[in-house]
Amino acid sequence: MRKGEQTKEYILQKAAQLFNERGYFGASMSDIMTVTGMEKGGIYNHFKSKDDLAVQAYEYSVDLMRQAFADAIKGKYHAVDRLQAVVGVFQKIPNGSPLAGGCPVINTAVHTSHTHPQLHASAQETMLEWQDFVRRIVQLGIDRQQLKPDTDVETVTTLLISTLEGAIMLTQLHQDSRYMDRATAHLVSYLQSLALTES
Amino acid sequence: MRKGEQTKEYILQKAAQLFNERGYFGASMSDIMTVTGMEKGGIYNHFKSKDDLAVQAYEYSVDLMRQAFADAIKGKYHAVDRLQAVVGVFQKIPNGSPLAGGCPVINTAVHTSHTHPQLHASAQETMLEWQDFVRRIVQLGIDRQQLKPDTDVETVTTLLISTLEGAIMLTQLHQDSRYMDRATAHLVSYLQSLALTES
Repeated sequence: MRKGEQTKEYILQKAAQLFNERGYFGASMSDIMTVTGMEKGGIYNHFKSKDDLAVQAYEYSVDLMRQAFADAIKGKYHAVDRLQAVVGVFQKIPNGSPLAGGCPVINTAVHTSHTHPQLHASAQETMLEWQDFVRRIVQLGIDRQQLKPDTDVETVTTLLISTLEGAIMLTQLHQDSRYMDRATAHLVSYLQSLALTES
Repeated sequence: MRKGEQTKEYILQKAAQLFNERGYFGASMSDIMTVTGMEKGGIYNHFKSKDDLAVQAYEYSVDLMRQAFADAIKGKYHAVDRLQAVVGVFQKIPNGSPLAGGCPVINTAVHTSHTHPQLHASAQETMLEWQDFVRRIVQLGIDRQQLKPDTDVETVTTLLISTLEGAIMLTQLHQDSRYMDRATAHLVSYLQSLALTES
């Protein structure tokens, strides 16, 4: 990576965390200068505006999550193992992995609702991508006769994501991982109840 | 109600919705003037500052929710009926009842995390109150032998709130009530599975 690209990635990494924690309106350019230790001019060498930085920082966060999901299901064949791996990725979010401040999609959705249509549309799009990712795992599991044939793909997808996102919220709000532990324990046994063959 | 109190309540009602939709930093005094149709001086007759208004508007939102929960369980004796009534209150949130913009507690939690410690602490406190409300219904249901004796009070509480809050998020984000419908259908049958006696 060239020096310029390294600097740009460094700014994105710092800004992604800041926007995730504080939101678009709660994070000022002065906050971004503080966390990066850079002057405004240095930042604007790489980004046209705060808006440009926020949009690219969001994409950077989503890439981190996308990579985490891909790594998690790698080498796993049974749908239950894959779905439990997805649960495992969500479970680590309140611990700051891959990004501090909670789920960037839900945070962005809440932070930009009614105030930043472009970022809100991006959050919507990412969530649809995640739903599709879960949906495909479930559907493939049914097709491969790993999951019961009467498994409702949409219900599993909605439940998995809703419960995990809600548990991230409670865990973040109370700084108490027991909320996430209870939610994941329930989901793991729920997923096992859908299995047709041993995972 | 005196005229002054009426005006104050009117401002709180408008501001509560605005803050719920846009967040503390996304809603400006000028936005508040627009939605109330009032001059800044008229608003400052009733509130010391934007901060004072935001804190009181949050309390106003929580009172609306508290009233909705109390009304929902009124006259219901079986824990399953009561818990389903609580689910029913959450189910209406994405339809703008009792307040447009989604769940005020989770919105405030996300909007004020790292940026407004006082409001964030209020969100934490309200969520603990809701958890306690659900927990007592479950515990009383066990004590009255309406629910199975091995029901895990903390798991039911966490699951109910996580799943509902997550489903509100998905429903709000996609403007599609099917997410809430799937989540509530699952919770209703989950709650029925905990029953020892018919509800």
